[in-house]
Amino acid sequence: MSPIKVGLLGLGVVGSGTWNVLKRNADEIARRAGRRIEVVAIAVRDLEKARALVGDDVTLTTDGMDVVRNPEIDIVVELVGGDTLAREWVMEAIAQGKHVVTANKALLAKHGNEIFAAAHERSVMVAFEAAVAGGIPIIKAIREGLTANRIQWLAGIINGTTNYILSEMRNRGVSFAEALADAQRLGYAEADPTFDIEGVDAAHKLSLLASLAFGIPVQFSKAHVEGITSLALEDLQHAQRLGYNIKLLGITRAREEGIELRVHPTLVPLQSMLANVQGAMNAVLVHGDAVGQTVYYGAGAGALPTASAVVADLVDVTRLQTAEPEHRVPYLAFQHNAMSDTPILPMDEVVSSYYLRLRVDDRPGVLADVARILAQASISIGSMFQEPAGEQADIIFLTHEAREGAINGAISQIQNLPFVQSAVTRLRVENL
Amino acid sequence: MSPIKVGLLGLGVVGSGTWNVLKRNADEIARRAGRRIEVVAIAVRDLEKARALVGDDVTLTTDGMDVVRNPEIDIVVELVGGDTLAREWVMEAIAQGKHVVTANKALLAKHGNEIFAAAHERSVMVAFEAAVAGGIPIIKAIREGLTANRIQWLAGIINGTTNYILSEMRNRGVSFAEALADAQRLGYAEADPTFDIEGVDAAHKLSLLASLAFGIPVQFSKAHVEGITSLALEDLQHAQRLGYNIKLLGITRAREEGIELRVHPTLVPLQSMLANVQGAMNAVLVHGDAVGQTVYYGAGAGALPTASAVVADLVDVTRLQTAEPEHRVPYLAFQHNAMSDTPILPMDEVVSSYYLRLRVDDRPGVLADVARILAQASISIGSMFQEPAGEQADIIFLTHEAREGAINGAISQIQNLPFVQSAVTRLRVENL
Repeated sequence: MSPIKVGLLGLGVVGSGTWNVLKRNADEIARRAGRRIEVVAIAVRDLEKARALVGDDVTLTTDGMDVVRNPEIDIVVELVGGDTLAREWVMEAIAQGKHVVTANKALLAKHGNEIFAAAHERSVMVAFEAAVAGGIPIIKAIREGLTANRIQWLAGIINGTTNYILSEMRNRGVSFAEALADAQRLGYAEADPTFDIEGVDAAHKLSLLASLAFGIPVQFSKAHVEGITSLALEDLQHAQRLGYNIKLLGITRAREEGIELRVHPTLVPLQSMLANVQGAMNAVLVHGDAVGQTVYYGAGAGALPTASAVVADLVDVTRLQTAEPEHRVPYLAFQHNAMSDTPILPMDEVVSSYYLRLRVDDRPGVLADVARILAQASISIGSMFQEPAGEQADIIFLTHEAREGAINGAISQIQNLPFVQSAVTRLRVENL
Repeated sequence: MSPIKVGLLGLGVVGSGTWNVLKRNADEIARRAGRRIEVVAIAVRDLEKARALVGDDVTLTTDGMDVVRNPEIDIVVELVGGDTLAREWVMEAIAQGKHVVTANKALLAKHGNEIFAAAHERSVMVAFEAAVAGGIPIIKAIREGLTANRIQWLAGIINGTTNYILSEMRNRGVSFAEALADAQRLGYAEADPTFDIEGVDAAHKLSLLASLAFGIPVQFSKAHVEGITSLALEDLQHAQRLGYNIKLLGITRAREEGIELRVHPTLVPLQSMLANVQGAMNAVLVHGDAVGQTVYYGAGAGALPTASAVVADLVDVTRLQTAEPEHRVPYLAFQHNAMSDTPILPMDEVVSSYYLRLRVDDRPGVLADVARILAQASISIGSMFQEPAGEQADIIFLTHEAREGAINGAISQIQNLPFVQSAVTRLRVENL
């Protein structure tokens, strides 16, 4: 089957991430989509820089209209951001009968209702997984995974910049201003961080999530938006003393009277999952009446995580364009005829770290003998402690990574040492 | 549009959960699916008990074949479990050209390849979100949400019974046998818990996840399966001292040489997300080359969470049967013409708990005045502490839930008290 043809608008951070993911995972993606996905045209600001990245086979232009009106193109991917040019180009792409994939939360938060209405009119898809929480498939989870539920509320850390700043304030005891300056220096915050630190970006995303959860039009203008700029370090510290951490949350909740839609710094219990989301990571907690609480966690921004979501949308649209309706999504993610025969490894080939516990006679030379056996098997020890057990002693090891076959061989030898008094306990350690 | 017709096989825990969710959320589900979903026939063991639950409008039978051969039925939902009758009925449903939704991991782990091949032949769906991790949409996440990625590995707590037992051992310092007995008494473990505690159930699920992640046939027979029956409490304690918790994980990893596929007790760092999954909850960590680490958390079992997944699959199949191919999944989860006009609440109507901090002169009567104002506004105080700040003092309150309008009114009054020396700090608290 011929490849599906894609036009990109923008080749910045997310645009070039998308280009790179489509290139490097082309085979894997085609196995899942049932068809190759080919970028044939890109609108960019700097033609020369773009040419260096994408080579000679792709049409480059500085005018987005060239892309959205290109009759060869099936899907337009909008990654320029903002809501002026992006809006014109997306509306024209829809008018041209093309499917649209976008990562642009500002655009959809402000003009989503108009865009979705136009797309409905023309029977094209508008997919926007990348607009909220980067690579976390939260839109798909709400839109398709939790369809059985009346969703009661959701709360999320959906802005990485502010979560990074709050994590730094708490962990290092620095002020907001200091943490912001660090975040800017390290690239976690933009030169003009207003949209992030004032909560606007989170509110854009939240208004989309609320629509998905409750079936309401996008109503960003009605969201309550409060950022973290006036948050004092001492409040973080008091909160801690009370058993809370402070996070910038987007919260939306269905009540009998209406829907709460709000972004603000929020105390959350220290032991809750959201309280423990560190740095620039994102997490969304969704509460449905049937499923109860579910949590979705991952990188909320960055070239590749965002590209992951953009390309997932491309695959969704491609599957829809391609497969028989009866099996649009392959049962096992990959197409029936694209199964691989990669073998399952025998357990001896597994590589892991290990926890070993030995009951031994407490006398000189014991540790030396055990250590020698491990060394001969090229197993290195991460940490070790010994504690008395009556006349005897327990020795506990944590090893570095080793093949399970090697560990098992070493254990057999250790087991045969005269001073080993019980079966060696062996557990696997994964430093996730 | 006429309802889509569903036949249920089984009306046990998950079957009656599915019945109940379809009933109570019928409108919400139809708004998302674009069509009503109607159960028209059910195969049960006890006709009388079933009749009492479902009323008179549904055909009941004790023979599953009556359901799978019923020409009126579009989708068969298999919830009987096991792999003998379930297998016959599912294969016959497929032969009859019906779509199948199942929660049966044992069936798919053993006979999935045969079932998927038959379904492919007949161009019908076999959906099984409920087979792994209950209500967490982990299958959809891997199959559709992460399609851009080469998935490198995944690791999950995918058996609630064993996680409950391990949590009890660690938190209460009891032995495996004691924890198991408690779990059985409380209904977290079955009378014959073998499949759970020996890791077989987790391995069934893991073999399905591995197929989804890597595009390989289902190969349960090649999985390494180790349970928790011989896990000693002291090892949990030693692990803790080393900075680890012990969890029963299913792990699968793609290596150059092949794929690791294994279930066993595993030490994981105390600060990791999986280490902190408590009780019967499930969580799956998926690592993709583009997205990095993502985590999916929620209830892994139970009538309603599992029904949530069953019904999500029903909606997926229904959307596929119904919508124009161009918009199988509505942009905003609900159908275009089913948007509601529920209003967005003004912020004053939001209900929350609050954190208040006041800088006050340190003299008698201060607390009494503040407390009186809060009491008059019907705001009750959860906890409170005071600490000196030079000549003055800071008072910190945590309130119970109150309307934001009431809080703001009280704050205005407090602000006007002569001894209040700075703006009152007000933050919201969500006890998630």
